[in-house]
Amino acid sequence: MQSSICLTSRSHNTPTSFVREILKVTQNKEVISFAGGLPNPISFPQDELANSMQEVVRKYGSNVFQYSTTQGLLELREWIANRYNQFSSLDLTAGDIIITSGSQQSLDLLGKILIEKGDEIILEEPAYLGAIQAFSQYEPTFLPVKLKDDGIDTEQVEELLESHSCKLAYVVPNFQNPTGIEYSLEVRKKLRSLFECSDTVLVEDDPYGELSFGDPVREYIAGGCLPNSVLLGSFSKTLSPGIRLGFLITKNQTIQNAFLKAKQASDLHSNIFSQYMIYEYLSKHDFDKHIVKIRELYQKQSACMVRAMEHYFPKEVSFTKPNGGMFLWATLPEHMSSMKLFDQAILEKVAFVPGDPFYINVQETNTLRLNYTNSSEEIIIEGIKRIGKIILKEI
Amino acid sequence: MQSSICLTSRSHNTPTSFVREILKVTQNKEVISFAGGLPNPISFPQDELANSMQEVVRKYGSNVFQYSTTQGLLELREWIANRYNQFSSLDLTAGDIIITSGSQQSLDLLGKILIEKGDEIILEEPAYLGAIQAFSQYEPTFLPVKLKDDGIDTEQVEELLESHSCKLAYVVPNFQNPTGIEYSLEVRKKLRSLFECSDTVLVEDDPYGELSFGDPVREYIAGGCLPNSVLLGSFSKTLSPGIRLGFLITKNQTIQNAFLKAKQASDLHSNIFSQYMIYEYLSKHDFDKHIVKIRELYQKQSACMVRAMEHYFPKEVSFTKPNGGMFLWATLPEHMSSMKLFDQAILEKVAFVPGDPFYINVQETNTLRLNYTNSSEEIIIEGIKRIGKIILKEI
Repeated sequence: MQSSICLTSRSHNTPTSFVREILKVTQNKEVISFAGGLPNPISFPQDELANSMQEVVRKYGSNVFQYSTTQGLLELREWIANRYNQFSSLDLTAGDIIITSGSQQSLDLLGKILIEKGDEIILEEPAYLGAIQAFSQYEPTFLPVKLKDDGIDTEQVEELLESHSCKLAYVVPNFQNPTGIEYSLEVRKKLRSLFECSDTVLVEDDPYGELSFGDPVREYIAGGCLPNSVLLGSFSKTLSPGIRLGFLITKNQTIQNAFLKAKQASDLHSNIFSQYMIYEYLSKHDFDKHIVKIRELYQKQSACMVRAMEHYFPKEVSFTKPNGGMFLWATLPEHMSSMKLFDQAILEKVAFVPGDPFYINVQETNTLRLNYTNSSEEIIIEGIKRIGKIILKEI
Repeated sequence: MQSSICLTSRSHNTPTSFVREILKVTQNKEVISFAGGLPNPISFPQDELANSMQEVVRKYGSNVFQYSTTQGLLELREWIANRYNQFSSLDLTAGDIIITSGSQQSLDLLGKILIEKGDEIILEEPAYLGAIQAFSQYEPTFLPVKLKDDGIDTEQVEELLESHSCKLAYVVPNFQNPTGIEYSLEVRKKLRSLFECSDTVLVEDDPYGELSFGDPVREYIAGGCLPNSVLLGSFSKTLSPGIRLGFLITKNQTIQNAFLKAKQASDLHSNIFSQYMIYEYLSKHDFDKHIVKIRELYQKQSACMVRAMEHYFPKEVSFTKPNGGMFLWATLPEHMSSMKLFDQAILEKVAFVPGDPFYINVQETNTLRLNYTNSSEEIIIEGIKRIGKIILKEI
């Protein structure tokens, strides 16, 4: 079928997801995959959610199937506000919160309302691939800032804020994707002081904050409460990613109104049945007890992967040792290419994500992302052993 | 809280929904509202859907809660393809179909991949408000084409296709929103011949096709099968709008690939739990029998509103008599403003949507949209009586 369709430049400039491109390889059951970012099914309280479904149909009848408001279910927004107020110094109300179709939608809609072609935006290097994709649709100029062991390089951020008129800055302070790095309290405080009086919108994305192996750090940089800031949260890593429910928190009315209008024009509202179901679950069950189960499992899996890497990887390979979240980040010796390692790993039936897609305009990187949440300890050990063998041959 | 945020021009140029703006008025239980576009709850098979929920959790376990593919559940896409193949001359496969978060998302993503600022697009006058909103985000130049009793003015479409290089054309051939008009077979055939060899993408939106009071016309203009065309469908009017599930059909690979990439960057995928639930329902129940119930109710409600308007409205008011769908369109004498009528109607506790928001750059129209699907016959008669009284005073 012929077509002479001229796509928009924003479409041409949006990268596809490497993770989704290699799905055909990683879905082969013989392949051990550390490439995806799938939560472990232990995080889905299936029976309780199934009961909550029945209960909301019984209690609210046709309301759970009808059109609903763009901002989202009031009771769920109240629950979210209360949870933050309980554990942090934030002072939120349901009115500060908008329910979204996953956090990915927040990234898309923030780009839509804030980014004109060529606008400069700050992000971590390496950065979350989904954010690069979402923002790319609005054709910004990315200003990557080096991510250090304790968080984003605040000196470089300060310089950029002074020398450029950046539209937004995107950071993932808790167990960052792809590196697993957790920002130190000092870095958080420094960023808070930098953004307190800035016109640059601080986008603080926190999908992994609840997945801390120790006591969660509830110290937000802005928590959506600085004048120009938003905080993004999600139920994807704690209850279910498949129902696509996240939320945006901001006290900035300009952002909130524009965001709501954009959401209305983009999908009217998020699945209301799932909002009722999640609210019913949260109001009837011990959410913290549920999360402890996920934390304990991920901590074990993470420790197992770290031990295996210490054992099977040559000492020239360095890697992060996460305090939470779902990912671990390895750095090969400088002359090695993780993309070439990937090609060989596939032959040995083991997969990871090479670093390249997490960078802006950088190729042939020597870094890679490994996910540990969806493999048994036995599989983790076997997979790391295989990757270690290939590295040893190449080094 | 102060903010010096500079929003994008696309944000400024997106209109809000009049229907949602007046929610506070119409949600007052004393107000009779013909303003919304809510399906009647009879269209939600609540018990069957509740059973389907339990069944999919039992059958598919964690899969219904996990991340899923951007294109959507294969089994559901197969069901959709089979239904079209059964009732029409289309020859579809699951590969031609993408599941979306309501049809609204298709409009947004089509705008995203096709419309550059200033691109010309054809649409009906009056047009579906949600489409005006979605496309406005990408700042096109709208070329409205008069909607006649038998459909869009094909002569004007032909002229525009010859004299302009239009990017896309958006039409709702079955029981159009806001007018309730159904395109004649002649208009459909003429449009097919016009778009057969055109570079202009034909977007054929069909949310109401199943809601025909007589035998549904399954004669699509393109059905997504002409080289540059897409067909949009939805479960919002037949099973549940709250779960936000629609679909895009196209055999054009350029559009499909760009659309999938845009969807991935915008929300990763649509709620997979609801996709499983709807598929389970459809594979276990008689969908046609369910739809007949909705059709019979809407036909009664529509006929009741027509009779009431014939009785209570002065003969200077003309209106459509729909063969299906959810809306009826009235035209007041030329000197009258439906926006002024609206202000007075609210005082009498009855609401409708004045015509203005359905037009591009036209104000003080003498037209209005009335929804009949969510009111009892008693309420319809009382509401129309009130509006009739005000018109009689003003005429």
